[in-house]
Parts: sequence; C-alpha cells; structure tokens
Amino acid sequence: MSTYKVSGMTCGGCAGKVKDEIGKVAGVSSVAVELATGQVTVTSDGPLDDAEIRNAVEEIGYEVVGG
Amino acid sequence: MSTYKVSGMTCGGCAGKVKDEIGKVAGVSSVAVELATGQVTVTSDGPLDDAEIRNAVEEIGYEVVGG
Repeated sequence: MSTYKVSGMTCGGCAGKVKDEIGKVAGVSSVAVELATGQVTVTSDGPLDDAEIRNAVEEIGYEVVGG
Repeated sequence: MSTYKVSGMTCGGCAGKVKDEIGKVAGVSSVAVELATGQVTVTSDGPLDDAEIRNAVEEIGYEVVGG
C-alpha cells in the first residue's frame, strides 16, 4: 500500500478522475482519494512504480507533491 | 471563433484545466469557459482543427459532446 499527496483536486469530479486514472496503472487493485487533504492511498498486487503513478496524475493535469 | 460543449466539468478547477489545455493548441488565441453550461468559446488566429480541440479535452479526462 502506498500513499501520495496530490494537489489541484478541487471537487469530487477531480477526485474521481484521479482515482480512475491511477486505477488504470498496471498492478493497482484499489485507489482511495481523500479530496479535502489530497491524500491518495493506492493498494497494489505487487511493487508499485511511483513514476507511473506520478505520470498518470500529471497526464490529467494534477500533481503529486508528496508521499 | 468556434464553440464546443464540454461535459464533465464540475468545478472551477475543472474549467481552468480545460481552458489551459485548449489554450495550448496551435493557433488558439483565447478560450472562454462557462462552467454552468459547459460552453467553451475558442478564438483562433486561423482555421481551427476540431479534432485537436477534442483531443486536448479528452487527454485531461473531459469530453466534447457538441458544438
């Protein structure tokens, strides 16, 4: 399980997009997004590539600002 | 000047992302986004490629649903 802090999510729609996009990353089994804090918790089947998560988030216009 | 109807924008952050992304398309000189209706008005220096606008919008997780 890995946690990330994502900036730029300002509504439930934003949070949903981030959740969906991270969910497409290989190996990810579940994603929980807390809109108020920007905390994203990712559960995966195997080791997770942080760069892939970062890319997924940035691709749709948000930013990973911490772990 | 071209207008598009974009679905999925649910807050000012969403609207800002769509505005910024369309603004990067070649030839676009200004973009106005109306969050409540989803109407996006794009002003350009020359002829505008609708497919490029559509791609820009879809790339960040929104959808062009009409003109």
